[in-house]
Amino acid sequence: MHMEAGKPAAPAVTRVLGIDPGTAVMGYGIIDGKDDEMDLVTYGAINSKKNSPPDERLNHIFARLTELIERHRPDVVAVEQPFVAQNVRSAFAIGRAQAVAILAAAVRGIPTREYTPAQVKQRVANYGASSKEQMQEMVRLQLELDATPEPHDAADALAVAICHLRELHLNRLLSSQEKP
Amino acid sequence: MHMEAGKPAAPAVTRVLGIDPGTAVMGYGIIDGKDDEMDLVTYGAINSKKNSPPDERLNHIFARLTELIERHRPDVVAVEQPFVAQNVRSAFAIGRAQAVAILAAAVRGIPTREYTPAQVKQRVANYGASSKEQMQEMVRLQLELDATPEPHDAADALAVAICHLRELHLNRLLSSQEKP
Repeated sequence: MHMEAGKPAAPAVTRVLGIDPGTAVMGYGIIDGKDDEMDLVTYGAINSKKNSPPDERLNHIFARLTELIERHRPDVVAVEQPFVAQNVRSAFAIGRAQAVAILAAAVRGIPTREYTPAQVKQRVANYGASSKEQMQEMVRLQLELDATPEPHDAADALAVAICHLRELHLNRLLSSQEKP
Repeated sequence: MHMEAGKPAAPAVTRVLGIDPGTAVMGYGIIDGKDDEMDLVTYGAINSKKNSPPDERLNHIFARLTELIERHRPDVVAVEQPFVAQNVRSAFAIGRAQAVAILAAAVRGIPTREYTPAQVKQRVANYGASSKEQMQEMVRLQLELDATPEPHDAADALAVAICHLRELHLNRLLSSQEKP
């Protein structure tokens, strides 16, 4: 390890908004990260009425996400990108939810990163095939919470945010080793 | 037929923006409709660079659609909603493109309608299993154009707009018969 020699300038705090995309329930979680330290900012879920027309649902989610982004001003939005879906209908819905999250960030010039579920599991639990329960427990432990965040969509969104912060931290370590 | 007895007040012109959703190429077509008359306003396609990151692509399409909507002020946006996709990846992409179109309209309070490909074929060519070529020819004939609109994404978008105008016209005829 050449950490001392190659130590980069202390990185600023990075605020990440993690998103678990869904049109019925959109999970979100915001975390501040610096080096390998993480501080929970907030988390929750945006629900939309099942019987509302699609345009009202997407517009509602977009408006709520926009509020969140304006209030908390994340540096980056990390969105889960599955490679599989239960069926085509569900893939359309996930794609729509992702686009709403990506646009809410992009129209404000905030960059987006996408991570597959396997990448999230690998970065959060060091194991790409972790169970949902293992992941939720890892999120609880890493954010030093008393209980697992509810609903599970919010816990999933926090996992995506943690994944991005881990990725950032690893990249910083690697680049500090490459350029001593 | 009870057209005379139940004739509703002459409907105003309805301007429809039809959308053939895709993240690589988004076809659009705007038509003014009144009764069973249709006037072409404009059509085209929004292309996004294949190698750009997804957030840039979606933001680019959103910005271009927003320009179109602000310039032409459609009363309604009609979006094609397939029930099948070649694969999951393509379903995610279509879902994203649909959401961009729906949001571009919804944030301005413009309603959206969705039609399946079979509905579009039925309304435009009176046959739900028409070929792509038959559909393009019907679009050309109904808009009294010299040639089929290019690219085919634009022709598909015009077909969705025609579908919505036909639907409107049929509903007006039906309601005028029901309430004489």
